Amino acid sequence: MSLTGSAAIDVARSALVASRRLATLPNTARNDALTALHQALDKNRATILAANARDVEAATRDANNGNLNHSVLKRLDLSRPGKYDDMLEGILSVRGLDDPIGKVTLRTLLDEGLSLERVSCPIGVLLIIFEARPEVIANIAALAIKSGNAAILKGPFQLTETGGKESMESFVAIANVVSEAIAGSQVPVSSIQLVKTRDVVSSLLAQDSFIDLVIPRGSNELVRYVKENTKIPVLGHADGLCSAYIHSDANTKMAVKVIVDSKTDYPAACNSLESLLVHQDVLETILPEVAVALIDKGVSLRCDEASMAALASTLLSDQLSKVQPSTETDYDTEFLDLVLAVKTVPSTGDPASAVEAAMAHINVHSSKHTDIILTESRDLATLFMSGIDSAGVFWNASSRFADGMRFGFGTEVGISTNKIHSRGPVGLEGLTIYKYLVRGNGHGAGDYHEGQGGRQYLHTSLPIAE
Amino acid sequence: MSLTGSAAIDVARSALVASRRLATLPNTARNDALTALHQALDKNRATILAANARDVEAATRDANNGNLNHSVLKRLDLSRPGKYDDMLEGILSVRGLDDPIGKVTLRTLLDEGLSLERVSCPIGVLLIIFEARPEVIANIAALAIKSGNAAILKGPFQLTETGGKESMESFVAIANVVSEAIAGSQVPVSSIQLVKTRDVVSSLLAQDSFIDLVIPRGSNELVRYVKENTKIPVLGHADGLCSAYIHSDANTKMAVKVIVDSKTDYPAACNSLESLLVHQDVLETILPEVAVALIDKGVSLRCDEASMAALASTLLSDQLSKVQPSTETDYDTEFLDLVLAVKTVPSTGDPASAVEAAMAHINVHSSKHTDIILTESRDLATLFMSGIDSAGVFWNASSRFADGMRFGFGTEVGISTNKIHSRGPVGLEGLTIYKYLVRGNGHGAGDYHEGQGGRQYLHTSLPIAE
Repeated sequence: MSLTGSAAIDVARSALVASRRLATLPNTARNDALTALHQALDKNRATILAANARDVEAATRDANNGNLNHSVLKRLDLSRPGKYDDMLEGILSVRGLDDPIGKVTLRTLLDEGLSLERVSCPIGVLLIIFEARPEVIANIAALAIKSGNAAILKGPFQLTETGGKESMESFVAIANVVSEAIAGSQVPVSSIQLVKTRDVVSSLLAQDSFIDLVIPRGSNELVRYVKENTKIPVLGHADGLCSAYIHSDANTKMAVKVIVDSKTDYPAACNSLESLLVHQDVLETILPEVAVALIDKGVSLRCDEASMAALASTLLSDQLSKVQPSTETDYDTEFLDLVLAVKTVPSTGDPASAVEAAMAHINVHSSKHTDIILTESRDLATLFMSGIDSAGVFWNASSRFADGMRFGFGTEVGISTNKIHSRGPVGLEGLTIYKYLVRGNGHGAGDYHEGQGGRQYLHTSLPIAE
Repeated sequence: MSLTGSAAIDVARSALVASRRLATLPNTARNDALTALHQALDKNRATILAANARDVEAATRDANNGNLNHSVLKRLDLSRPGKYDDMLEGILSVRGLDDPIGKVTLRTLLDEGLSLERVSCPIGVLLIIFEARPEVIANIAALAIKSGNAAILKGPFQLTETGGKESMESFVAIANVVSEAIAGSQVPVSSIQLVKTRDVVSSLLAQDSFIDLVIPRGSNELVRYVKENTKIPVLGHADGLCSAYIHSDANTKMAVKVIVDSKTDYPAACNSLESLLVHQDVLETILPEVAVALIDKGVSLRCDEASMAALASTLLSDQLSKVQPSTETDYDTEFLDLVLAVKTVPSTGDPASAVEAAMAHINVHSSKHTDIILTESRDLATLFMSGIDSAGVFWNASSRFADGMRFGFGTEVGISTNKIHSRGPVGLEGLTIYKYLVRGNGHGAGDYHEGQGGRQYLHTSLPIAE
């Protein structure tokens, strides 16, 4: 076995052992560890910022030489106003959340003295792989401890050979403080392990007997790489291809507002709009108003034939310079930029059939993240909301609301486009599963066999609250 | 592309299309399809039993020639008293369950006129692979329709080249009736597709863009094969290695009752006991009584050195003939037979440390299915129940209670040892996921940006009931 292989097994195995101990700690002990983590990061602010400054200095040189993207530099800098305090505040806010562990979700009296309880518990061992932002360590460590899961943190990791190195000093400085803080708490030290070596990633992804869930935090490419290289369940989304459908009865003002916000509020986000479907009857009424508002915000449109013709007959020529014919691939492209694909939805006159046609397109082309309908009809909205197979289906509201903070979850582990376990913005609850507890008094199942004069199960639902 | 590859894609794609339509049908329409299914199977009883009789006749010849296990023959025979009626009754009992779809589990007012709802919905497309029992088709079709999921049924399928053929006539006869019954309902015909050809299995397992969940129903080998040959999430368990720990304060009578029931009630079941851990202080008190009761039921014991010595000094010589030394692999073996591995748990005197030692063994060797503690101490039971990482953790009760019917779930899709989504006995709920519905009035997220005089989210919890 390779050195990295055996190192990965050691890390994963010790995480598993730690996770079992962590699972037995009460919320107070987990919260105390978060308090210690907060204090340690506060106390060591100068050391961490000094390490970060060295990263920033090197990264600035690289950026000026054109070897690094300026947006990476911006994300790296922990000395920007409020950033370090936000990181500290985030730990306290996770500490303040309800305990996600030990929640009873089912309680049944099976027979006299024999009870069944379904109770939430940690998943076990998480592997979190992240790309650059060093403050993610503190955030993820807090979420893992609060939810009673052990976490292996691999970062900074990027798919390019040299990627990630720009935040290495910050990463190591924060990691050391996190480890020290936990060592002084009841949370086992191996609950949070920080892995620096790059080679170890594929070995960690092979530890499906020790690791229960992988959470990649970063680019679509990172998520796709992880999904393709492990048998461990992956929580995340590789794509965020959100669509909106403007039905013939949509309110024009509402359509303009929702589409412009969905597309332009933050075009690089996964919950931004990438495809617009328009009912054929409103190509020359609602579409031009939406198009002009988008073009005013700098958006380019990629239109199919019918929508192109409608805009050609209604827009001014300088506006038309932002409109061009679409290709088929545009409807499968996550632009993450001020570009929007536009497609016409044909109609036979039956409103439901137009909605069906829009749904058929979206269910094939969207990435099951978030999709929108604009309509005044509650019935058609209900049809769309049940027929669209996405984590979020929104009626007359911007796709940009698809976010854990905006949903009121307090914090967000990520946004999932999985079809099982957790979907959409995932909060602490997504890091839990449940177990069934049965308490008896020496009960055997043989006493209940049918047709042998056996006992009958009561199966009485009991109140959830103790 | 191979013929089976393109056939698999066709099947999977049409299942996906059907699943989207099925997801929009109300409970009444899904229940009507179950009524039609029940009537059709009742009406065609003679045809199906005739086909089954031909299977049984051929299988009887094979069994008499020693080419087929007699237990397979027994499972195959639909004419056994009550079996066909049970199959029919099962459809009505699924129909009578609460609608698992459309359940609201979270409702939040984000702002005036902007609401968030989390609502249960079907997962999408299920692939169910089963080995021999032909009546499983009716059961699974009913569960899939009730939960709004499309299902591709591949059966009878076995890993051996000729396996499964013994139930082919029964399978085809039931499959035809199921298809015809659905054709007369609102449920799309492609919602339940039955695949006979053997070759298509690996192609189906490759359709991870169309199929959301695979459920193998059959032997451990089948489950293991499926898990190793697909990227699609698999619901099931490859092993059922259940353990019990007898603590020093256990009630002897209770220990005897629970251990004997767990081991002997139905030794071939996945929820039967395979390993027994015994606190060192009760090797010569509780263990002999348990051992004698087990031996009386025909159980052989595989003991470590200390437990072997304790039994040698307390049992009669004819009883001792059923006791032999264990090897290390016995503690990782699912015997599925009247054999039990016994191991001593050393103690330093501190009760919690003995429980810790037992937990450390179980968390490594058990298959995360169901494990038991026998103790009079609530505190130690609580420690064990939080520290054991299994779907079921039972206190003074038999592992044989780990079952959907016994838990009062009405029906059971299977028992899962997964760490995410569904764990333990899985009912209809395990075939659902949720989506987030947002209803607005033209709301954009840009209006809520911080530090720009933006609007504040209300995040008011609303009552779940409408």
